[in-house]
Parts: sequence; C-alpha cells; structure tokens
Amino acid sequence: MKKAVIITIGNEILSGRTLNTNFTYIARKLTYLGYDVLRGIIVKDDIEEIGNAFKSAIESSDLVVSSGGLGPTYDDMTLLSFSKAFNLKLTLNNDALEMIKEKFDNMTPEREKMAMIPENSIPIRNDAGTAPGVLVNINNKDIIILPGVPREVESIFENVQERIKVPGYVYYDKSLRLDGVLESIAAPLIKEYAKNNPDLYIKSHPYGIEFSKPGIELEVSGRGDSSIYEKVDKVLRELSEKLMVKG
Amino acid sequence: MKKAVIITIGNEILSGRTLNTNFTYIARKLTYLGYDVLRGIIVKDDIEEIGNAFKSAIESSDLVVSSGGLGPTYDDMTLLSFSKAFNLKLTLNNDALEMIKEKFDNMTPEREKMAMIPENSIPIRNDAGTAPGVLVNINNKDIIILPGVPREVESIFENVQERIKVPGYVYYDKSLRLDGVLESIAAPLIKEYAKNNPDLYIKSHPYGIEFSKPGIELEVSGRGDSSIYEKVDKVLRELSEKLMVKG
Repeated sequence: MKKAVIITIGNEILSGRTLNTNFTYIARKLTYLGYDVLRGIIVKDDIEEIGNAFKSAIESSDLVVSSGGLGPTYDDMTLLSFSKAFNLKLTLNNDALEMIKEKFDNMTPEREKMAMIPENSIPIRNDAGTAPGVLVNINNKDIIILPGVPREVESIFENVQERIKVPGYVYYDKSLRLDGVLESIAAPLIKEYAKNNPDLYIKSHPYGIEFSKPGIELEVSGRGDSSIYEKVDKVLRELSEKLMVKG
Repeated sequence: MKKAVIITIGNEILSGRTLNTNFTYIARKLTYLGYDVLRGIIVKDDIEEIGNAFKSAIESSDLVVSSGGLGPTYDDMTLLSFSKAFNLKLTLNNDALEMIKEKFDNMTPEREKMAMIPENSIPIRNDAGTAPGVLVNINNKDIIILPGVPREVESIFENVQERIKVPGYVYYDKSLRLDGVLESIAAPLIKEYAKNNPDLYIKSHPYGIEFSKPGIELEVSGRGDSSIYEKVDKVLRELSEKLMVKG
C-alpha cells in the first residue's frame, strides 16, 4: 500500500461557496487504486500557499493529486506555484499544445498558457475541457495536477489512473444500517471487535434523530489481499446481529 | 478581518465515502462572520495527525474550527489528541455532564467520556445529539471543536457563533451565468478588471459543455464595510455586459 495526499485549490472552496466534490471523487478513486489517503489540504489561489501545500504533501506521501487552478485565467496559478516550489522551468510542451489546438480554430496567449507545463512532465488528455492534466515525477514520487471543473477532473483521472495503480491490492468496505441502535450502546462492542480485528477498520455513523428515532450505520473496511472480502463480511454480519439483539 | 483554519477529522472523508459537507457549512459561516478562511486540513482518526493539525492551524490563524471525532466510540479521539498536543488535562466538566444527563436515563462510561473536556474549556449545547461542542481559548486564539454529524455541527455552531463574530464587517458575493461565453475569451477582460479592483475577487467558473454549449459563471466578491455591496454589483454588471457583447 502506498500513501497519498490530496490538495484542493480554490478560494470558492474556502469561502464555502462550492462543495469540494473533487476531493471526494479523487479520495475514493485513490483508495480503490491502492492508496492510503493520509491527508487533504485545501488552499487559496495564492502562489506561496499552493507551493507550500505541494512541498508538505510530497514529504509524507508517494503520490500527490491536486485539483484547481489550471485554466486560462489570471488566478489559475497552480503550475506556476508548483514550478517555483520545486525550481522547475515552465516550458511550452508540444503534446499539450497539440491537445489544445485540436479544440480551437485560433490560439491566444490565454490558450497557450495552458500548454506551458513544468519541464519533464507529461500532459494528460482532457476529454471534457481544454486544459490538459499534468503528470510529473519528483524523487520517485508522482504528482498529478488536475483542473477544478469536476467533469474535467474525472475525464483526466480516467486517462491517468492505469499509470498509478498499486498492483495486487484490494480495498473493500461495506456498511449496514441498524435501526433503533444508539451509538453509545454500540460503542463497547465495536471497540472489542476493533481490538480483535486490527487489520479492519470499524466505525459507526449515527443517523436519524438520536433519541426519538435513533439508528447507526455500521461500516467495516479493510485493505490487503483478496481474503479481505470474507473478513469484512463476517465481522459486519456478526457485529450487526449482536447489536440488533442489544438494541 | 480575522483568519481561520478549518480541520475535518475522519477516515470516512479520506476514503471518499463521505462528502465533506461540514467543511463547506463551516467555511460559509466563518466567511460571513468576518473570517478569511486561509486553509482546510483533512486528517484521519489518529492522535498524532489530529494533534499536528491543531498545532499547525493555530500557528497561522485567530480561530480554528474542527469537526469529527467527538462521540462515544473508541475512534472518537479529537479531545484526547487536542489535549495532548497542548498539554491540557481532560477533566470531567459538570456543565457538559448535565447536558448529557438530560438526554439519558442512566449514564455509562461511553456517555461520561463525552463530558471529559480540556481544562478551562466551555461546553456548547448540542440540540441535535449528545456530545456537546467545546470552545477553548489558547494564547488569545479561539478553538471550536465540533462532532461529525452535520445536523449536530449546525446545531452547536448556531449556539456559539455570536461569541466569535467579527464586529463591523461585511462579506458579499454575487454571481451571474453568462451563456455562450468561453473562459479563454473572457480571461483578458477579467484580468483587467481584477487589476483595477484590487479590493474585489473576480473569478470565472466554466459550466455547460465547453465547445458545443459553453458558458461561464462570473463571481465577484469583496469584504470590508458596507460600501462593498455597491462595488461588487457595479463590477459584476459592467463585466457581464461587456462579456455578453464579446460572446
């Protein structure tokens, strides 16, 4: 299992104007591709903030994925910030330029800007918009830089995911809703099961109205080889049966 | 204007299982209460990760708000992590205990756990669940610790927001959808307006299908005294009129 950090860039996320669906999409994908997503960082459209986020993310992980700040406007500064942080030059990439030219009859400085990517990086095709994604490798760590529009994030991610998949790795989670169970009643038994199954992660999420109509969603997850499916199912079944009796 | 950092705690966010709606709710509230939300940090249910997140957040801000990890189960470890990070004792708080006792006929160790809060902190009433929120002040900085269930986050936040409001401060944003406008066409004019209005933030968000049916959402926002309303409206109006002509 490898470690990943996700960076989301954009003032509209930090002002609460936009829900950070990109983070959730990327986190889910990375989890299933074999990564333990260690941390998320959300930063402003600011050169120093973005650069520092990349530096701190790369320190603790094997893979960094960012979204936001990759378009043609003045505040799309992710590639500039990233290049400054790691002393890379931004150079006009011919493959990227071709990808952008396919979409327009004529080029402008704003359109060309999207083909200026860090030296030694690879542009990734964007089938839902203009700005290509960027894949870079620094000190044996992969960095994937994506735009902010969710549809484009998904398109580019689909085009790059095979390159970052961790082989021979399985992630599995399953959950079950238990009506009428209070979280504070379930807690001791969940703790016991968690202790006896250190390779699984067991969590309860309360739902409903806590006292008049309580309920918890019980979630069990695990990573490793394919034996994990059976382990997760068994623990979820046992635990839910016991909790439904306890009520 | 004061600065804030938001921490979200929970493996279910990092695995992409749960959308981080708490972050967006808190970010929106803090923005309107007079805070510049500098950064967001998403961390696991892990004592060291949570402690480090609080330490780094407090360094760069006047207010830190966290959500997640405040319930009765074994992996609800936010208060423990916070206390360890700042060398505070967790003590049984009588007001918190009363709030919890109101909800149950009998107490258990798991229920009492929720009344163990850092010394010198204030419990904040949770009208939608059990675990009270916690307000602490360290070196003249406020820290608000909330649970992870969105309904409870909102309930507690409503009960604490008057205490953290920045007086005499206005935030305003407004947006408009411009059908048929391509972002790369709009970019130069937006840049010019941004340069001439350094107190405003002007951003475009592409929507629709970029080439067959393009469009941008134009967003203008500002902070300060009440003159900001007129400024934002004026710039949004002018800019959108010019862009619609350009197409």
